Formats: sequence, structure tokens, C-alpha cells
Amino acid sequence: MNENKQKPNPNPITMKEASIASREWLPVYDTLAASALRMRSRSYAPYSHYHVGAALMAADGTIFTGCNVENASYPVGICAERTAFSKAVSEGYREFTALVIAGAASDSAGSDFCTPCGMCRQFIREFCNGDFPIILVKTDEDGMIKEYQIHTLGELLPHSFGPEHLGM
Amino acid sequence: MNENKQKPNPNPITMKEASIASREWLPVYDTLAASALRMRSRSYAPYSHYHVGAALMAADGTIFTGCNVENASYPVGICAERTAFSKAVSEGYREFTALVIAGAASDSAGSDFCTPCGMCRQFIREFCNGDFPIILVKTDEDGMIKEYQIHTLGELLPHSFGPEHLGM
Amino acid sequence: MNENKQKPNPNPITMKEASIASREWLPVYDTLAASALRMRSRSYAPYSHYHVGAALMAADGTIFTGCNVENASYPVGICAERTAFSKAVSEGYREFTALVIAGAASDSAGSDFCTPCGMCRQFIREFCNGDFPIILVKTDEDGMIKEYQIHTLGELLPHSFGPEHLGM
Amino acid sequence: MNENKQKPNPNPITMKEASIASREWLPVYDTLAASALRMRSRSYAPYSHYHVGAALMAADGTIFTGCNVENASYPVGICAERTAFSKAVSEGYREFTALVIAGAASDSAGSDFCTPCGMCRQFIREFCNGDFPIILVKTDEDGMIKEYQIHTLGELLPHSFGPEHLGM
Repeated sequence: MNENKQKPNPNPITMKEASIASREWLPVYDTLAASALRMRSRSYAPYSHYHVGAALMAADGTIFTGCNVENASYPVGICAERTAFSKAVSEGYREFTALVIAGAASDSAGSDFCTPCGMCRQFIREFCNGDFPIILVKTDEDGMIKEYQIHTLGELLPHSFGPEHLGM
Repeated sequence: MNENKQKPNPNPITMKEASIASREWLPVYDTLAASALRMRSRSYAPYSHYHVGAALMAADGTIFTGCNVENASYPVGICAERTAFSKAVSEGYREFTALVIAGAASDSAGSDFCTPCGMCRQFIREFCNGDFPIILVKTDEDGMIKEYQIHTLGELLPHSFGPEHLGM
Repeated sequence: MNENKQKPNPNPITMKEASIASREWLPVYDTLAASALRMRSRSYAPYSHYHVGAALMAADGTIFTGCNVENASYPVGICAERTAFSKAVSEGYREFTALVIAGAASDSAGSDFCTPCGMCRQFIREFCNGDFPIILVKTDEDGMIKEYQIHTLGELLPHSFGPEHLGM
Repeated sequence: MNENKQKPNPNPITMKEASIASREWLPVYDTLAASALRMRSRSYAPYSHYHVGAALMAADGTIFTGCNVENASYPVGICAERTAFSKAVSEGYREFTALVIAGAASDSAGSDFCTPCGMCRQFIREFCNGDFPIILVKTDEDGMIKEYQIHTLGELLPHSFGPEHLGM
């Protein structure tokens, strides 16, 4: 993982190509992915029927989870990633190690990679550096983890707007 | 409280005028207010310097708390009320008893009533009926509870937009 | 209309009950409603299939229109009312006379009253006083205006959060 | 410009390095930048005091402009880019050629590059392809254009979430 942290990789690293360093983090990602998948099933998504779960690890190893919570007025809803982060921040946490995201349409346990929307990338940006790892989970028809795709925040939100633009 | 639930009161009920029925709920509000005030101090509000804490009680008595989490891109931030509700919903809760809100500028522990913004009222609307009580807390210079103002969701968001407009 | 402006009416005034004063405003509402209905058909709503149009009159009589613009990430979309207001504000306008809203599911020209969501009420609150009239339009199967429901902002967003909470 | 469109450039192209192809577009960018700078001065930003203007060109050459419109409830505000796009979409436009953005703190006409927040990148994503050019403007102390920084949407929001995730 360290290598990926050093410089964002333009080609998302899948597990097939994962470096030895990345493999060390696999047990952590597996734990977070299991939480994200449990959370995915709690999602309140009666409008999109697209269910997303997220699991966030804080610097001390504490895990915070979230799912999307939709609203009849669509712009008022909250995504899974922001739910997890706002939970953590409200509990006093400000430093984070990794975020795992799993999404799927409600008619199938199997799913392709669900990537965070731009709004969530911006929310994460407030608390994490460019090397913060964001891991996407692909599941098979039985809802089992099939493959990871590993990104960094810097890769997903380059040239970002942040506190420094406001002189802070 | 029952009387207030029956029909929204156009003049917000302060504790001075509170009915006998409302008084029975006071210990609950005190507990929630203490949580909201603790949460207020955890707020991440480097831009507005206006700190808000919220405490939400679920039907089974579980308490969920939240604070505002701001962002350099202001529209991306989340209010205290939505943090508390998204936490609760992501934990599988869908029925709620009461919400207490406490807000204050960072240069003072004393504060006037902080009322929920329209976006939060809409978020709450998805899960609560018109008789859902929303209690605002005023604090004195020592940060101690001075007075409650009791509203209902139906009073704060009348003629609301909801799932039924989308045919659900 | 003046009477309604004086004090928010708890029971939304329909045209049947409209006062003589309100009738004077009917030609204005008809003009705005025609614009809102045209705008409704331009709405970008591939996710909700619920189309909303809004027409806003500025103090000098200029009309600004808007429709909802949805996004695959639902919370990123914008409602019709905020589109109309952001247009107007970006053109230098800060004072407004009336807002008319028309919404309908895409499978029918006929529609019931579409009321603004809480987020839009909050957006309007920044620029309008409590007596600002918000008029809802009901249409028949031919898409023709059938009835108005007249509210005020103060009625739809009482005890609102505003600039004064931030000491401004 | 064509070269940039072909493949997102990891190192933002400044005018110094701009290709011959890009130079052909300079008069268009100058026109849009002038609009964005005018719009910047109309921004309603009493909370952040950070003013942003945007100018969007549609496929037929029509220009739509926008500024940020803030709200006392910070998450309810709208950024300049979304104002410009929602204007355009509500006028029936769906295809766009270029977006120019100019931002600055209110105490100075001079400014560094203002990059779009993640939420706006997501909003743009709904209507534009990865090769859509997003041009940032740096101004000197007299508010005159000093330098452009040219990005593409694909570069600023790679691996994006979009309609295809929802099966559309």
C-alpha cells in the first residue's frame, strides 16, 4: 500500500496486480468490506433502489459505518460515505486510515465497483490527504467479495478545492 | 405533550406555559439536551463558528447524537440534525420519539434557541409524522439549560413535500 | 393578497375562498403559472420522473424561471425553485414579489399541488420575508390551470433559521 | 485543445505550455473569462466572502453565467458552476463546449486559480463527457486575466459515478 500512497496510480490497482505491500493490508480491507456489505443491506433507498454501504477506519482502528439515506426531495438525501464520515467526526475522530465502499442495485447481490460521487469525495477531502486509500468492492451473485479496486483520494479528486482557497 | 401533538401550536410553547402532560417528558428532554450540549462542543465548524449539537431518541429509547460537520465547499457540509438521523437510520432505526437541538456561536456558551434549517426539516420528514416533537434549548452564560421551546415537525414544515408526491 | 401578507393563514387559501384583494393578483399569477408550466416540460428528471417548473417575479416585474435538474448522485441535483432563484440572484436581483410552482409525474399532465421541499424554503428564506407569496398550481388532464393554493413563506417555514442566528 | 481532449493530462496545462491547438481556443476562453469575472462581482457570498463566477458555453455558442449564492444554512447554498449549468439546462440546453471559472476572496481582485468543488464536478458529469474542458482563471491585482489553467472533466473526476451505475 505504501507505494500507492506515495504517488496516486493513474491505473486503478486491482488485486490481481496488487503489490506485496498492498497484500499486507488485505486483512484490514476484508474486515472493512464485511462491514460495508452488512451496512449495504441497511440502506434506505426506496427511490433509487441502489444500495450503498461504507466502512471507515479511524487512525486508532475504530470502524465507522454508513449507508445511503434517501429523501423524497432527492437533493436532501445523504450518501453512505458521508454518513460514515459524519458519524466519525461527531464522535471526535479527525484522522482516518481507509474507506471501503460497496454498492449494488437492490435486485442483485452481485455488483460492479461503486465509486464515490464527487460530493462525497469533497466531503472526505476536508479530513484526508491525497494518499488516503479508497477501496471499492465487487461482489459475486452470492454477495461474496470478488475483487478490490484501490484508489487514493488524490487520484479521485485531483486539483481539489479546499480550506486553503478560503485562506485557512 | 399530548395536547401539543394533537394540533400544532402556532405560538411555540415555552416551559413557562408547558402543560402538565409536557412536564412528564421533561426528564427525557433533560437527558437529550445534555447529550446535545456535549455534542455541540464536538462540532466541526471552522467556517461558520456556529456550533450545533443534536440528540435523537429512537422508539426503543436508544439515543443518537450528531453535530454539524462543515466543508470548505459550504454546500457539501452536513448539519447536526442530519448527522444524528443518518446515524440512526444506518443502524436500522426508523421510528423516533423526540429530537433536541442546541446551537451557539463559538465565542459564547450562552445561546438563544437554534431552530433546524429547512433542509433538516425535510430530512426528518421522511421518517417522522407531523406530531414528532422538536425541542430547542436555550443556555445561559455557563452553558446550563435555561429554557426549552417545544415545536412539532408539522408546525415547522406544514404542507410538506413527501413520498406521496412521488406516488409512494 | 394584502390580508394574507399581514398574517400567515394557517388554512391555505384556495381560489374559492380568495379575498377580493387576492383577485387583483390573479392576472399576475396566471402569467407566472403559464411560465412555470412551460418550464415543467423542460425539467431534467430521468430518475424521479417527477417534473417541476417554477416562475419567480422580481420586484421590477422581471420573470425568472427554473426546473428541477437531477443527477445520478441524487443529493447533487437541484430543484426548480432554487434554479429560478439562483438565476435571478446571479443576474443581480435581490427583491422578489411572488413564486409560482407547478409539478407533475411524467405520465400525466394533470397534477395535484406540488409544495416546495424544505431545502428550497430555506433557500428562499435568504432573500424573502415571511409575507412572500408562494403559489401552487393544480392542473387538469389537459395540463390547464385548475386551481391555485396560496401560501406565504412565513407559513411554510415558521421559526426559521436565518442570517441573524449567525449574528448578521 | 484537441490533444488535451484525447487523453487527460495529469499535469494541468498552463498557457505557457499550451499547444498550438489550444491557442485557437484562446479567444473563446477570453470571452468566457470576461463573463465569469463580471459574474464574480455579482456573487452573493456574505458568509465565505469568497466570490466565484462561471461562464458556460453551449454547443451553439450561447453563453450561460452563474455565481455562488450562499445561505445562512451553509449546505443549502449553490456554487457558481451549478448556477450556470442549471440555468442552461432549464433553458433546454444539454450539450456544452467549455466552462470557465474565476474565484477570489472579496478583499482582493487578484486571485489564484479557483478549482471546482467535487459536488460541481459531479453535477457537470451528468451532461458532459470526460473531454469537456474546464478552464481556471488567475487574475492580477487589477482583476485582469493573468493565466489560464486548462483541465478536462475526466481529469478532475476520474472513475466517476454516473447514470450507468443506476442501469441507465
